Amino acid sequence: MNVLIVYAHPEPRSLNGALKDFAVQHLLAQGHAVQVSDLYAMNWKATLDGADRLDRDPAARFDASLDSRHAYEHGTQSADITAEQDKLRWADAVLFQFPLWWFSMPAIMKGWFERVYAYGFGYGVGEHSDRRWGDRYGEGMLAGKRAMLVVTTGGWDSHYEARGINGPLEDLLFPIQHGMLFYPGFEVLPPFAIHRTSRVDDARYTETTAALGQRLDGLWTQAPIPFRRQNSGDYLIPQLTLREDLAPGVTGFTAHTV
Amino acid sequence: MNVLIVYAHPEPRSLNGALKDFAVQHLLAQGHAVQVSDLYAMNWKATLDGADRLDRDPAARFDASLDSRHAYEHGTQSADITAEQDKLRWADAVLFQFPLWWFSMPAIMKGWFERVYAYGFGYGVGEHSDRRWGDRYGEGMLAGKRAMLVVTTGGWDSHYEARGINGPLEDLLFPIQHGMLFYPGFEVLPPFAIHRTSRVDDARYTETTAALGQRLDGLWTQAPIPFRRQNSGDYLIPQLTLREDLAPGVTGFTAHTV
Repeated sequence: MNVLIVYAHPEPRSLNGALKDFAVQHLLAQGHAVQVSDLYAMNWKATLDGADRLDRDPAARFDASLDSRHAYEHGTQSADITAEQDKLRWADAVLFQFPLWWFSMPAIMKGWFERVYAYGFGYGVGEHSDRRWGDRYGEGMLAGKRAMLVVTTGGWDSHYEARGINGPLEDLLFPIQHGMLFYPGFEVLPPFAIHRTSRVDDARYTETTAALGQRLDGLWTQAPIPFRRQNSGDYLIPQLTLREDLAPGVTGFTAHTV
Repeated sequence: MNVLIVYAHPEPRSLNGALKDFAVQHLLAQGHAVQVSDLYAMNWKATLDGADRLDRDPAARFDASLDSRHAYEHGTQSADITAEQDKLRWADAVLFQFPLWWFSMPAIMKGWFERVYAYGFGYGVGEHSDRRWGDRYGEGMLAGKRAMLVVTTGGWDSHYEARGINGPLEDLLFPIQHGMLFYPGFEVLPPFAIHRTSRVDDARYTETTAALGQRLDGLWTQAPIPFRRQNSGDYLIPQLTLREDLAPGVTGFTAHTV
């Protein structure tokens, strides 16, 4: 299988760097093909702007969606964007690895999604009708592929539990896992999280790589998070609210898993 | 009063640009002082890296927290970071205005938080003991100041409601409002949100600016979101889980408001 690792950490000699190297070696040893988008090493352009469409009239009003659509359709995207889209097409599974900074991904990776997820590729796909609202949330260009987050945090496990002060990790990651991965069609596996990264000694590192190795071995077999598919009949269209008879009375993120 | 507007949109001739200009004029007309950090116009460096500490040994291992701490303590931060910290010290209230891209703020603004919130300024403040876990979540360098998000989205209002497919807007914004604003001490006002931005005609624009004007007039009087303060006794230390007798059985983000 083909695995892409999109990786954002500024220091190769870090826990993240070591875990990324471990993942590459482990996947290669299992016979998989691996590509890594090491965003810091690539000096990835984090900011979406008019320069992302090569044939843009600089005097024209910039529209993030319409300019992206034009560039994607006409082959006038910035070359770095096209290269990442090609890696996504190639991949059967994608790992997104990053330290949790301010309860989300680093800016450099956020900018990867903003720029690589062009209109017509990451969103704006499919038809809108009285039965469908585009190909998204379970359908889209990345359908059939799997994705998994590999996340490190400085806080303690308990700080990210159901009643922990930071909020549950699964809820903090919902905008990413549901809104950025399930949205264009990925099947999203539960995240692999390592907390309290300042206290990783040799024993804990060995334990962590063993656990990560198991998760990598299960990339093709593990059950994804059972997010509800948008066009499955569970949602009213066009309101896109969950049907009243499903999970009655439940609100918030949890309503969107079966 | 002094109001800072941190603003992220790539096109001045946009709805966001018009609303930002309206806010500036409205606040000035009320006698307030206003500064704007227009991140796209400033060509803000979105990516946190070793260059943010001016006296760093380039051969040394980069540590985002420790290098930030050193630079903040020794006055060797990149000048753009120091300038933004000074604006925050000056401000009595801060508006953060942005289009919701992939269910969060644009990368350029995420990078503003990552770089401006230095160790010792945005986090790593205060003492840890058996009764306190640092000055954060209601205490910190920005205590006494107010913050409010001004957010635009392309989706419909119903898509962001309690059972809407995107997840409730208040939950999508929790990592920002609780994790990035309340964390260093801001009192956070409910967000001002405008949905379905492709359908803003003159009538709706007039209605929107009237509503925004009212919110700006209420910056000093409106009740903030009643997030629980970390060191108030509501949380066990060091686990930082909510005491069992408070909101018994409630999990997730809602447990952290009174």
